[in-house]
Amino acid sequence: MYRRKIPEMAITRLSIYSRILADIDDGRTISSKELAELSGHSDSQLRRDLAYFGQFGMPGKGYQVKELKRRIHGILGIDRAWNVALVGAGNLGSALARYKGFEEQGFKIKAIFDNNIRKIGRTLGNITIQDAEELGETIKKRNIEIAVITAPTEAAQEVASRLAEAGVKAILNFAPIRIFAPAEVKLVNVDLAIELENLSYFLAKARKGNDQ
Amino acid sequence: MYRRKIPEMAITRLSIYSRILADIDDGRTISSKELAELSGHSDSQLRRDLAYFGQFGMPGKGYQVKELKRRIHGILGIDRAWNVALVGAGNLGSALARYKGFEEQGFKIKAIFDNNIRKIGRTLGNITIQDAEELGETIKKRNIEIAVITAPTEAAQEVASRLAEAGVKAILNFAPIRIFAPAEVKLVNVDLAIELENLSYFLAKARKGNDQ
Repeated sequence: MYRRKIPEMAITRLSIYSRILADIDDGRTISSKELAELSGHSDSQLRRDLAYFGQFGMPGKGYQVKELKRRIHGILGIDRAWNVALVGAGNLGSALARYKGFEEQGFKIKAIFDNNIRKIGRTLGNITIQDAEELGETIKKRNIEIAVITAPTEAAQEVASRLAEAGVKAILNFAPIRIFAPAEVKLVNVDLAIELENLSYFLAKARKGNDQ
Repeated sequence: MYRRKIPEMAITRLSIYSRILADIDDGRTISSKELAELSGHSDSQLRRDLAYFGQFGMPGKGYQVKELKRRIHGILGIDRAWNVALVGAGNLGSALARYKGFEEQGFKIKAIFDNNIRKIGRTLGNITIQDAEELGETIKKRNIEIAVITAPTEAAQEVASRLAEAGVKAILNFAPIRIFAPAEVKLVNVDLAIELENLSYFLAKARKGNDQ
């Protein structure tokens, strides 16, 4: 059967629709136009994004909010919990370990690793920081499928390779360096400066006084 | 003159193209197909994104890398430096203050604020943490146009209002709560869990063994 390739940005937009819907009553219906406006995307974009995943809503009647939430959660895989490991207990790691948004979406931090002897054994959130040497064994034992890399730049690639070897299926890398993983591991490099560029684009545009 | 509305995702993709181009020699040319493949987007998407901003490259010859970089940097407003303030010197604030990716893209942290008396006067990177009471005056004096909110959730909205009042033109909010700013201030709410959902989508899909 022929299947269209689904762009990654469509998945990001599904996350955004899901955030908007979280503030809307389960009992009502919502039109594609209203949901699109609240999310800052176009009506046609929203309908195209949903169409990748089948039939949603009823023509002229809009979507039932409860049902739309349920299906988007299912698509995004947040209708269940995922066990997550964090590698690197520095400032960013500590911030993410306490970040409430992860747990709310079902991402449960089950292990934290560092190789700094002064950090090992201390707790972060309610997790004891473990020696990075225990990474492979712990990941298997605690059934961890997703890892977040907050290690220093120079360690990031080695950490990714060890995570892949330990059987992690997906890696989110916050180290500001492009790293690589085997094809069977889904890797996303997060670039925190991209959001700032979204702002500088608008500021530069306002200064030029036009769209170019 | 009629101007098309440019989707925010197109701006995010321009940032991604810009990251890819950074690793490519200025002296060569690159086809839209090659750049699209490296970025994980489609050729037609790339050409549509660039077309919002005019004519790029020569049909059949591709883009001159140096020229393409220069124009994308101009569009994104990263052909110049921006002064940035950081509000909230907790774990995430500390991580961002030391994040190398910001400075590299021309985002220079010029002030850090907190209201915790134990943090005020300490330095972070090479910036002295100031009392949040000094926010208005400092932002004007140091010509700060962009602010990053890493304050606790319950303080985020008040901080945003004070930043807008002080004349900040753009705000990046990392507090996991949707906040609002006056229409003349560009506000982006960053949701760190969205990237994890991109991963869980792929894991869920792999488990189901198909695209739905």
